[in-house]
Amino acid sequence: MYLTQGLHRSVQQTPRETMTICGERTRTFAEVADRVARLAGGLQGLGVGSGDRVGILALNSDRYHEYLLAVPWADAVLTPVNIRWSPAEVAYALEDSGTSVLFVDDLFAAALPAIRDRYDGLRTVVHLGDGPTPEGTLSYESLVADAAPVPDARRGGDQLAGIFYTGGTTGLPKGVMLSHANMVSQNLGFMASRAFLGPGTRFLHAAPMFHLADLAGWGGQVLLGGTHVMVPAFDPAAVAAAIEEHGVTDVLLVPTMIQMLVDHPAAKERDLGCLERVVYGASTIAEALLRRAMDTLPSTSFVQGYGMTELAAVATILGAEEHRAGGPLLRSAGRAAPHVELRIVDDGGREVPPGVVGEVTVAGPNVMLGYWNRPEETAAALRDGWMHTGDVGHVDEEGYLYIVDRLKDMIVSGGENVYSAEVENAVASHPSVAACAVVGVPDDAWGERVHAVVVCKPGATLTLDELRRHVRSLIASYKTPQGLEIVEALPISAAGKVLKRELRDRHRAEGEA
Amino acid sequence: MYLTQGLHRSVQQTPRETMTICGERTRTFAEVADRVARLAGGLQGLGVGSGDRVGILALNSDRYHEYLLAVPWADAVLTPVNIRWSPAEVAYALEDSGTSVLFVDDLFAAALPAIRDRYDGLRTVVHLGDGPTPEGTLSYESLVADAAPVPDARRGGDQLAGIFYTGGTTGLPKGVMLSHANMVSQNLGFMASRAFLGPGTRFLHAAPMFHLADLAGWGGQVLLGGTHVMVPAFDPAAVAAAIEEHGVTDVLLVPTMIQMLVDHPAAKERDLGCLERVVYGASTIAEALLRRAMDTLPSTSFVQGYGMTELAAVATILGAEEHRAGGPLLRSAGRAAPHVELRIVDDGGREVPPGVVGEVTVAGPNVMLGYWNRPEETAAALRDGWMHTGDVGHVDEEGYLYIVDRLKDMIVSGGENVYSAEVENAVASHPSVAACAVVGVPDDAWGERVHAVVVCKPGATLTLDELRRHVRSLIASYKTPQGLEIVEALPISAAGKVLKRELRDRHRAEGEA
Repeated sequence: MYLTQGLHRSVQQTPRETMTICGERTRTFAEVADRVARLAGGLQGLGVGSGDRVGILALNSDRYHEYLLAVPWADAVLTPVNIRWSPAEVAYALEDSGTSVLFVDDLFAAALPAIRDRYDGLRTVVHLGDGPTPEGTLSYESLVADAAPVPDARRGGDQLAGIFYTGGTTGLPKGVMLSHANMVSQNLGFMASRAFLGPGTRFLHAAPMFHLADLAGWGGQVLLGGTHVMVPAFDPAAVAAAIEEHGVTDVLLVPTMIQMLVDHPAAKERDLGCLERVVYGASTIAEALLRRAMDTLPSTSFVQGYGMTELAAVATILGAEEHRAGGPLLRSAGRAAPHVELRIVDDGGREVPPGVVGEVTVAGPNVMLGYWNRPEETAAALRDGWMHTGDVGHVDEEGYLYIVDRLKDMIVSGGENVYSAEVENAVASHPSVAACAVVGVPDDAWGERVHAVVVCKPGATLTLDELRRHVRSLIASYKTPQGLEIVEALPISAAGKVLKRELRDRHRAEGEA
Repeated sequence: MYLTQGLHRSVQQTPRETMTICGERTRTFAEVADRVARLAGGLQGLGVGSGDRVGILALNSDRYHEYLLAVPWADAVLTPVNIRWSPAEVAYALEDSGTSVLFVDDLFAAALPAIRDRYDGLRTVVHLGDGPTPEGTLSYESLVADAAPVPDARRGGDQLAGIFYTGGTTGLPKGVMLSHANMVSQNLGFMASRAFLGPGTRFLHAAPMFHLADLAGWGGQVLLGGTHVMVPAFDPAAVAAAIEEHGVTDVLLVPTMIQMLVDHPAAKERDLGCLERVVYGASTIAEALLRRAMDTLPSTSFVQGYGMTELAAVATILGAEEHRAGGPLLRSAGRAAPHVELRIVDDGGREVPPGVVGEVTVAGPNVMLGYWNRPEETAAALRDGWMHTGDVGHVDEEGYLYIVDRLKDMIVSGGENVYSAEVENAVASHPSVAACAVVGVPDDAWGERVHAVVVCKPGATLTLDELRRHVRSLIASYKTPQGLEIVEALPISAAGKVLKRELRDRHRAEGEA
């Protein structure tokens, strides 16, 4: 199993059909394969060797797609970086993974000095934007044009395909190691479910391509040999325009994006009748939003995929039929996909019967190899081949999974995981803060929003603006608290732990009142 | 990846739906899982340990299906034996694989003494028939009833799933080692193609279940959680009856079986409108037969799968649309399935362009681990991960594969591979035979039939009847020559090799005349 296999297959079967559409640029399978073989040759010419990590920090584009294929073709390892991260976080991920070659686009070229200030290991930076090539970087197109094509290394099987960073419970991001077999088997299983994509489809990359959610669909589409359409980033008008102009059939969004799309005038002005499927993840969908989305997009099916980076990504699927039925099933994350086995277990690792709450665990060929250089966290997450997700839930008598809580102290805001510990580290470093706790509180637009509860040092004061400015200099803006509550003391358990549930429940009660 | 994963998933999602229908017997997923866990417990109680080989010699049944799941559940290895083989061949396969526990049904219990005469390593025989338990065997149902269920060993990944015997070019059958990952990844890829089976389908096992062709569909159906219907063996009237009575949607047949089914009165007397797909393999289909089949089964799609045991089994697929289009495409074996990459290579292993004839090679996660205890034949077949099929063909500009010849000296008759060397060994052992060659000649009903060309010893004579009697005592009846030609001398090349093409061409010319 190797990520590039589908490209070879498509070159054999449909060489002159369209593989990528990005703005005005369209490329066939044969053209992409030629460019990928040259880019891989260029990388090898730069000294990239077997297993070396090659990073990318860029908005979506056809070149991002070529990077994803050229790096394994060159026998190297993907390290796509979260585009919403601060320079400090990006530098951390690059250093942790030992990435020495980085691809950046026009937007992120500007962040290079700040990244280089914190990490001096970047040997080569390749600029894949359309603007002029910044000083100190190589031109992507020159690299492709000047290099001779090399044969595919056919890196595959249990070999490392990529290191994908997620927030860490301990406050630092950790690298999820996925093998080619992990990614390709989830692609096969996701496609065998028939829930998403299919023969002759056009997949729009509107969600960021660094994220495993979009990459899971990307891999499925490479496997099936369909067309990829890219927009740089999610924007409701641009997404609606791309769907209409390019006959997009499938798109992955998070519920927040669905809401922004269906509530935008473009959704009514454009003819979106070609859109067959929207798959969403990261949270369940509110029935009211789903109804509105179905009214706006009457010919579109909605599908939920639940999973995580560690599962490359899809583990359970809530299908189109369940969405049409509506009702309580909409609060479910769906049922085990064809490639996985799902079990709810108690603290001792024993399976519990339907209806009983426990930790969600998943087995299958998609379960990650482990966390990069983190044997202890790997051992905690992977036990006898079962991924312990940290999500708490139950299954019903028909195998439908319901997530009710998280063991990990994590907030999901607009489809992104925010680990409270990471935000707390940033908040606590403000000179006015004596103690703090960060929780997620319900939010109509984002699912949850980041909320800080702070005890100030004696005599000190703090405003939300001041706190946000401070935190944003350290971590990504989507992790920055959107609310601040100053308290005399944090509620503490007998064991000395902050009672976060109490902090959250206060807001839930307010929200419902 | 493990063969039992789909069973766990179905027990979680559809425990009370029907998993197997065999004659009057119907069992739910929960019932099958319970029986499988008990049967696995019974096997372990008999001393079957990790990696031990457990054989089966039986017609199709629901118990065959349970065997296929219980053996890996018990951490053991499947060795299903070809039901058309002679006792000598069965004994060879059991001895070669070191199988000490064998399942037999009523029909094959009668062959036990002849097998035991040749192989004394059978420690335990389990009788899974409906008749009385023969002396010296254990009752399958007692084994299931008396054993306590054991947890699934979840044998999987690269661990050996089974040893599947195919004819050998050197004259002896060889064991193809398939891992769980080999089998499950082909199941996922075959299902991702959407060419066969699908949600809510009922798959009829009419072709023998020991064969990878039927097992490829079996595995896909276990993965998707559909229903299995079994008939003991192919019989056109029984197949038509089962399709109508049980609402069968999918069946795997070889072209010979399709012909027998559509030309049988039952095909018109029965309502076969539920049959959505017929997948066939082992050879292409004659357009005249396909048209007749489409007329008789107007609501059925026809699909071809090309592959081999070494590929577990499907490598290329000719889909329903191509069949509806008809014409020259019907002579193609189809295009690479989602899980494989297909290349035509020259003698030096270099890929040749479309239209150029070479050896068919296949890469993918379904490529076997190797031949059991045959490192030399393994090294010859597997080079850099590519399976060298021994078939000679070319691909066109759209990736359609056309098989034009075989490197291996092999005859395909009624869907079974017959290696000439094996038949020649048997023919040559007749006291009247001085020299012989065995070739396949065209046959309307069987695709090819086995034809012997013999030079008699001075003064000796030989009739077809005499030869057939002799050969049948040694090898399976389907390998027995159906024609005999006595010649003065065999045509020999300068290098001393028999010119088989010359022998075959003579018959082709006659057939066309």
